[in-house]
Amino acid sequence: MASPHTEPCPIAQLLNLIGDKWTLLLIREAMYGTTRFKDYQANTGIARNLLAERLNRLVEAGILRATPISSRGASIAYELTEKGASMKLVLIAMVQWSNQHLFDKDAQPLEFIDKKHRKPIGELRITNHLGKRVDANEVIVRAGPGASKAMVRRLQAASQVNAR
Amino acid sequence: MASPHTEPCPIAQLLNLIGDKWTLLLIREAMYGTTRFKDYQANTGIARNLLAERLNRLVEAGILRATPISSRGASIAYELTEKGASMKLVLIAMVQWSNQHLFDKDAQPLEFIDKKHRKPIGELRITNHLGKRVDANEVIVRAGPGASKAMVRRLQAASQVNAR
Repeated sequence: MASPHTEPCPIAQLLNLIGDKWTLLLIREAMYGTTRFKDYQANTGIARNLLAERLNRLVEAGILRATPISSRGASIAYELTEKGASMKLVLIAMVQWSNQHLFDKDAQPLEFIDKKHRKPIGELRITNHLGKRVDANEVIVRAGPGASKAMVRRLQAASQVNAR
Repeated sequence: MASPHTEPCPIAQLLNLIGDKWTLLLIREAMYGTTRFKDYQANTGIARNLLAERLNRLVEAGILRATPISSRGASIAYELTEKGASMKLVLIAMVQWSNQHLFDKDAQPLEFIDKKHRKPIGELRITNHLGKRVDANEVIVRAGPGASKAMVRRLQAASQVNAR
């Protein structure tokens, strides 16, 4: 692994977990119900040594849970924790962007549907604090309570650019 | 760059664009209004050779646009295209997950607010085809019109796991 980002930015810190070629494919596999090492490998094409390292890292980060599934402990099931399962929203956002921009409408490989109606869900919606829908253009970023002074300055400058 | 994913999966194909340690930080910077090479470098800490390669790749992918800003063409502004700007929803989903899971509530470094009320937006919402809110647990994945036969089989198996 390359050295991790130390910047206190939610995107940088998330990239320390998923900022590589494979990790999100492993999380995708876990969402599809894959549990065994050999199936993670067969379904993604990742090399065994990388897979072992990535699975361990996801377990350490609390995104996957490793459970022995044979009495001798030789076989392990890797499954999403609640924390890992809540990454589904990130995957939905990614798939919606990717379907829209990288594939023709009649060539989209995946779709998310709701169990009840079995129809594709709509585009993820942004809502304000009152629950009213807002457009992405109406959304800007600002420093949160944990921002460093440097970050506060950066984001004030950014907010002026974005407010144009 | 490592060899790209060839699998016709929207997540894999998106990872060919953003599946590394830096690219999403560059897209973040572009959203903050950064335009110059030296500012991308100073604000992220990326090495110059990597930055040049990543910016070129993002321009090729139509996510950034490179515009000469001096009469001699020595200076270039790298700005988001419409396609790039529409990745904001992906970043919002990521920041919301990261804020919730990697930072204490009073130590969150970033927040997204709506311009009008200047208050934090709510969690991204999933809606069904009728526009009604659905829970992430109610959402499953299935093969789209562009899925390969192998993928259709994979996703049918996944959907049985997810329907449990």
